[in-house]
Amino acid sequence: MAAMKWWGWGLDGVEFTHEDKPELGPFIKQQLGLDLARATEAPPTFAELELAEPSLPAELRAALEGAVSAEQVSVDPLDRVVHARGKSIRDLIRQRRGDLPRLPDVVVRPADEDEVTAVLTAALAADAVVIPFGGGSSISGSLEPPADETRPVISLDLGRLDRVLEIDTVSRLARVQAGVFGPRLEEQLNARGYTCGHFPDSFTHSTLGGWIATRSSGMQSDRYGDIADVTRGLRVVTPTGMLITQPVPSASNGPSVREMVLGSEGRLGVITEATIQVRRLPEERRIIGYLFPTFAAGLAAMRDIADSECQVSVTRVSDAPETQFSFATRKAQSTGDKLQWKALTTYLRRRLGFQLDQMCLSFIGYEGSESHVAEQRKAVGKIVKRHGGLTVGSGPGALYDQKKFDTPYIRDFLLDRGVPADVSETAMPWSRLSTVYDAVNAAGHGAFAKLGVQGYLMCHLSHSYHGGACLYFTFAFRPTPGADMLAQYDVVKSAIQQAFVDNGASLSHHHAVGTEHAPWLEQDISAPGVALVQALFAGADPGRNLNPGKIV
Amino acid sequence: MAAMKWWGWGLDGVEFTHEDKPELGPFIKQQLGLDLARATEAPPTFAELELAEPSLPAELRAALEGAVSAEQVSVDPLDRVVHARGKSIRDLIRQRRGDLPRLPDVVVRPADEDEVTAVLTAALAADAVVIPFGGGSSISGSLEPPADETRPVISLDLGRLDRVLEIDTVSRLARVQAGVFGPRLEEQLNARGYTCGHFPDSFTHSTLGGWIATRSSGMQSDRYGDIADVTRGLRVVTPTGMLITQPVPSASNGPSVREMVLGSEGRLGVITEATIQVRRLPEERRIIGYLFPTFAAGLAAMRDIADSECQVSVTRVSDAPETQFSFATRKAQSTGDKLQWKALTTYLRRRLGFQLDQMCLSFIGYEGSESHVAEQRKAVGKIVKRHGGLTVGSGPGALYDQKKFDTPYIRDFLLDRGVPADVSETAMPWSRLSTVYDAVNAAGHGAFAKLGVQGYLMCHLSHSYHGGACLYFTFAFRPTPGADMLAQYDVVKSAIQQAFVDNGASLSHHHAVGTEHAPWLEQDISAPGVALVQALFAGADPGRNLNPGKIV
Repeated sequence: MAAMKWWGWGLDGVEFTHEDKPELGPFIKQQLGLDLARATEAPPTFAELELAEPSLPAELRAALEGAVSAEQVSVDPLDRVVHARGKSIRDLIRQRRGDLPRLPDVVVRPADEDEVTAVLTAALAADAVVIPFGGGSSISGSLEPPADETRPVISLDLGRLDRVLEIDTVSRLARVQAGVFGPRLEEQLNARGYTCGHFPDSFTHSTLGGWIATRSSGMQSDRYGDIADVTRGLRVVTPTGMLITQPVPSASNGPSVREMVLGSEGRLGVITEATIQVRRLPEERRIIGYLFPTFAAGLAAMRDIADSECQVSVTRVSDAPETQFSFATRKAQSTGDKLQWKALTTYLRRRLGFQLDQMCLSFIGYEGSESHVAEQRKAVGKIVKRHGGLTVGSGPGALYDQKKFDTPYIRDFLLDRGVPADVSETAMPWSRLSTVYDAVNAAGHGAFAKLGVQGYLMCHLSHSYHGGACLYFTFAFRPTPGADMLAQYDVVKSAIQQAFVDNGASLSHHHAVGTEHAPWLEQDISAPGVALVQALFAGADPGRNLNPGKIV
Repeated sequence: MAAMKWWGWGLDGVEFTHEDKPELGPFIKQQLGLDLARATEAPPTFAELELAEPSLPAELRAALEGAVSAEQVSVDPLDRVVHARGKSIRDLIRQRRGDLPRLPDVVVRPADEDEVTAVLTAALAADAVVIPFGGGSSISGSLEPPADETRPVISLDLGRLDRVLEIDTVSRLARVQAGVFGPRLEEQLNARGYTCGHFPDSFTHSTLGGWIATRSSGMQSDRYGDIADVTRGLRVVTPTGMLITQPVPSASNGPSVREMVLGSEGRLGVITEATIQVRRLPEERRIIGYLFPTFAAGLAAMRDIADSECQVSVTRVSDAPETQFSFATRKAQSTGDKLQWKALTTYLRRRLGFQLDQMCLSFIGYEGSESHVAEQRKAVGKIVKRHGGLTVGSGPGALYDQKKFDTPYIRDFLLDRGVPADVSETAMPWSRLSTVYDAVNAAGHGAFAKLGVQGYLMCHLSHSYHGGACLYFTFAFRPTPGADMLAQYDVVKSAIQQAFVDNGASLSHHHAVGTEHAPWLEQDISAPGVALVQALFAGADPGRNLNPGKIV
């Protein structure tokens, strides 16, 4: 797996374009006052960056080379820059600015668990810092060395641990090395007729170990569960030896050690292997589009689906602003498409009483046997109808399914044009959804107003559970010329995060804590909760060698 | 809720009898060489016990009375004896022997969370030990003060915190005080049209807080999940203040604090309240009986059901010994019943090729709308048939459903006759089930042989998951006359537990660690796993005032 761009998302040469999307330019012009025609802030060239020399004592370097061989110990400047951070908007802005005060001193690429153990042993002996690195897709600041870290910093890239070691087809469990990227994992499982079913937006550029370390969730979580449900057994290299939990489906053996490792962001050790729940590839897989007259109607329908006997794999409904953004990113339509669209909107207005600017697009996924999928679609269709919604078929769903991993590229596209865009997501009980939605809108638009900037804020529900759901907000704004973009970003981001915890929602549903969300941890889990997490980290890593400064 | 018998399970006056079960006497005679006709070891009277005086400093007593009022501070001898232990077979044998070296010094009954806080504050100020007490049904030694504890020991009985405070019908979440017993919880929820769906065997004599503190699982876990799934938000009184987690359905906010409290057995603090997932009472609820030709066939069917699109609430299949025991506990049959049974067994032998001594009884539960239940039954019926099984209808299932909470009374009945009986249960991946089953049978019967005793060992599968299931073993033996019954019990129990961890199964699926299972913790979760749990407890309770000596 090639590393991502040092200044943005994805591989070199892959990027978002507005040129085949005729409605996007006018939409952005109207919403942000921005002319998409030209990029104003092209990323700098790598040669322009001023980088500090690595501080790697010869003895440590020799020990690391002994652990993994010389060619897997890299002090290459690009390697160090790519491994310095994740892909939060703060990371991208600073990378592009050349604001790189503390790079890792060395990137080490072990081949297997024994080599990970050897690296950790060498690092601890030298009192060095170890930061495990999967795909580098963190948007919560989980990968950056503390600015004031004076000890040598090792970025431990797990990318070579990329194999499915064994599939237990009787238990439907796969033993998998933690450094495997999403596509390579699915490729190996699919070849045997199985799937993990875990598809976060970062799927193409994130790893199993990263998902576990951050408590990830994929878009099909309604069927497959979150990564916490998928992960059954663990192997973790720790300062006191191999931490091993058995891949049992459930256990009563004290506070769950498995759940301590989930979300630990490298602070307890290095995850080298997991035994994960897999399922047989479904006979049929469909994502169907629906339209609702309002966001409230869409939310109510999702809530009723979660309470029903229907089995779905994806539940998603966008609010009106996100629906409008979604329509604005359509490719050029044929005359036939345009006529169909015209007919549909006329029907929605005249027959169903939709106000088109309030309309909300929804996707619901189904998996299983043909008859099962047909039955579930029928049952869901009734619920949708009861809430005034309309089934619009598989066309929009298929499109969503194809484009689902492309969203992060839009962020770079906007940043090239001086516009920061970011996301904040959270989970809450069903009864809090509209309160949180309203509060975040008030907070976000309040922040735009306070800054005197033109901004856009949109949201979708995804990941339904019996008792609640995730709300996923995306925002962008056009900074005041001459102002510090990051400082302005902080005002907006902080307002939204504060609205979460003030209204009974978690600081994140699946993006982790890192450094970005750490200021809200105590408000989320209470001071005694933070104390428990601190006790855990202090006990496991008294020398603070394991990714220090993250979470707490 | 009245306290249980000090020497056995359940309320005074409620007991198991063999007199209406004509087949049981001959069965026990054959299997254990025991004559049921007379009890040989009636429990002693309370007056015979020699009890140490409580050691309760006047200052602490005054502080406790200030916290909860004088009448809720009890040094009554019976109160102290009832609160001294749970209901493990080791507990019952020692209680009956009058072997009571370390009782709690005082039993305190707070009315609410504030009073719990006041009690904990007073206890910490006096360096006393606090042992939270729910229903006292622990069979893992989670409630006993360490024999060498020299500080005052407070048993904190949560029984007065028994109210459902609020039902959020939009989110289907109920805010409930932790001291509520199963029946009172369901009564309050049912009155509003909801159920928690958590029905462990201890249901009538255990509490919500106890379920959480021990990671309980109920017989309908296939539908409702384990208590870990049911529990969404928590309030826990800790030495550093109120630990509060939000009742969100899922979160990425670091290692899960909720999961640290689950299974913590009072070592992190006192659980005072939980927000639990509830569901609307199902329109229909059915438990259907099935017969399989062998245990292997029954296990394979359960495994296929877990892999199918069927939604069931209960999956249970007994091995041949448990099936035979089950038949032996039938009440006297009418001539019609006998003829029906004769016809059935003839059909099984002649048409389906069953060997009757290998036959296995199974129950599968269904809940939901009438049509949903009918569809699931039909789909399950096909799977059962594919594995050579036969549907025998709702009669045996209804009987099971009525008698399900009576099993613990049999243990006292046998102990009255000098026979110790106990259970050990575990979880494992589907692929390990037959290995573990065989290993436990070899270990259990090997232990009987080693001791030279006649013993019986039986098993059922319950609690199916996509990746595995729980195996639940019950054993009884007739000790060597004159030998130490407890020492002989330890040989059998240890052999079974060791077979679990030696074969990739957990030390327990839902009975917790306490002191009974603590010797196997390191083999289950590895030494670094134990170190994490120790770090957690040490950080939360540096003075070891909270139920010391449990789990680790």
